[in-house]
Amino acid sequence: MKECTLLMPLDMHLHLRDGVMLETVAPLTSYTFSGALIMPNLVPPLTCKADVIAYKKRIMSALGQVEDVEAELMMDDYFEPYMTLFYQNYDAKFLEDIQDEITAIKLYPAGITTNSDGGVSSFDIEQMRPTLEAMSRLNIPLCVHGESEGFVMDREAEFMSIYELLASNFPDLKIIMEHITTKAAVDMLDKHKNLYATITLHHLLITLDDVAGGMMQPHLFCKPIAKRPEDREALLHVALNAHPKVMFGSDSAPHPQDKKESCGCAAGVFSAPIALQVLCELFDKHDKLDNLQTFISDNAQNIYGICPEFKEVGLIEEDFEVPLKYGNVVPMYAGKTIKWSIESVV
Amino acid sequence: MKECTLLMPLDMHLHLRDGVMLETVAPLTSYTFSGALIMPNLVPPLTCKADVIAYKKRIMSALGQVEDVEAELMMDDYFEPYMTLFYQNYDAKFLEDIQDEITAIKLYPAGITTNSDGGVSSFDIEQMRPTLEAMSRLNIPLCVHGESEGFVMDREAEFMSIYELLASNFPDLKIIMEHITTKAAVDMLDKHKNLYATITLHHLLITLDDVAGGMMQPHLFCKPIAKRPEDREALLHVALNAHPKVMFGSDSAPHPQDKKESCGCAAGVFSAPIALQVLCELFDKHDKLDNLQTFISDNAQNIYGICPEFKEVGLIEEDFEVPLKYGNVVPMYAGKTIKWSIESVV
Repeated sequence: MKECTLLMPLDMHLHLRDGVMLETVAPLTSYTFSGALIMPNLVPPLTCKADVIAYKKRIMSALGQVEDVEAELMMDDYFEPYMTLFYQNYDAKFLEDIQDEITAIKLYPAGITTNSDGGVSSFDIEQMRPTLEAMSRLNIPLCVHGESEGFVMDREAEFMSIYELLASNFPDLKIIMEHITTKAAVDMLDKHKNLYATITLHHLLITLDDVAGGMMQPHLFCKPIAKRPEDREALLHVALNAHPKVMFGSDSAPHPQDKKESCGCAAGVFSAPIALQVLCELFDKHDKLDNLQTFISDNAQNIYGICPEFKEVGLIEEDFEVPLKYGNVVPMYAGKTIKWSIESVV
Repeated sequence: MKECTLLMPLDMHLHLRDGVMLETVAPLTSYTFSGALIMPNLVPPLTCKADVIAYKKRIMSALGQVEDVEAELMMDDYFEPYMTLFYQNYDAKFLEDIQDEITAIKLYPAGITTNSDGGVSSFDIEQMRPTLEAMSRLNIPLCVHGESEGFVMDREAEFMSIYELLASNFPDLKIIMEHITTKAAVDMLDKHKNLYATITLHHLLITLDDVAGGMMQPHLFCKPIAKRPEDREALLHVALNAHPKVMFGSDSAPHPQDKKESCGCAAGVFSAPIALQVLCELFDKHDKLDNLQTFISDNAQNIYGICPEFKEVGLIEEDFEVPLKYGNVVPMYAGKTIKWSIESVV
């Protein structure tokens, strides 16, 4: 029976929400991941130091963790929430003051996805320059939800010109193209040295066909929407080969079942509790299991310069039946059988 | 206040279903339409004369109509269900026997949409030749759900080669490209004299953006799926200008609310009760109200050679609030306000 050991898995794009939802979903990630980059699009979004610190405390509390160095070292399953700030045009002093509390700043075009209304409404480089230059100097990466306001299938490709603008104007700024879904974005990786990307689980697996080609599947509806087969192929190619500029970011985004199976269905795929199992299945299917460690952790450590707590996750080729629900959230592949299971977490 | 009078409106592509659903939806069409082409994709599909006759009787009964020529003439709101047969490779004798009971034969690629499993699984022209030649001779039009098994956004465009094959091999067969959604299909109209098309209400109004660009909207999910803005523009162009080879066919396809707002959402937009009002609003907005009569009835009469019962529908520019439900079916634009209302039906 095949086995796979993953060290310090990292999810570099995660939505933990707040309140009851946070308590439901946070332990499902912390069980198998050493850490995750936590998205700041709460209501209201995280735009100041006090809010970031308070949210981190709520996450720690949901996990039964305390912020105490000694206690931390005692825990053998410590999980690090790498915090992010919601992008606005901040001044250098503000950034200097907050830099120790955050791992990155996340930029949303205004209104482009869940809770993004306070985002950037025009990409005026000169207006953004002071913030982005300070971020470059302080080595704070910029994570970007890269979609235009255009036709849904074109939004990411249309955003490439903005990535070009950002990457060339701020060559010392690390820019992460979040949850990329297109060949156009993959092609950008080799064009600018300071462009990186996260790739979700679902965009490696589905196309628009899976969302709307048969019955419409609300639990596979997300933003950016899944694209064409040739786009998925391009994503698979760089993920399976562990291209050094791509890392895993689940974009796992829980919504209560009644917000998904309803008249207007919220965007987001909840994949956190199945991510490692399905990634093993996928990489194994393509005979690339040896590359999964790099995709799931090493690249992120290099790109972000982070040193996660030790965690060793053993997976085994053994059937895992995905639960129909976690709390009131329906996961991706609910009720389906995955060929790989978590065997041990140390 | 603007007014519009429509004579003998026809819906040349309609799903009435069966049982309780038939009783719910049939009167909503018969109220304002003189007649409609009734789709045969029941479970099981209509594949013999007895089934067609029995289904027509159930429709008549749901409308409180009786099949009696004198009684018919007494009714001032008689509605004609133009019946169709589910395409299979029928022999000439079968077709001669059934021809008086049907207005057209509807071809579905196998498995392409709701209740289409018994459809055509390979387009082998020589296998189909006896049937299609008999249909040509008997002047029975062939209505086609034209989609390949490819990627959802490409399915209709990929089917154009099949239309070419059918149109050129059977030049005397009237072929109706049903519910067209792409510029590719519009362009075909002028390439083959025997190709015609129906266009739905929703494909004149929405693109994939409306289905999945914001929140995902199950009540706008249909097959073929709504396409790109340039496709909608091409459809609008021929509809608003009442191109002589296009006619209105709503493809109004009711599903119970719980089959739409669920984990797997069934395909179909229920537009029958709002169709004339929204068409008036749309044609008026584009200053093309004078062309609506041709699109809604005259072209269909010419193409099919049918003479519907007299019906005069008066519409007026006055707010109409779309009900949230008709029975347990949520209509398109539920709860929204349309600028035109039905004023009178004579």
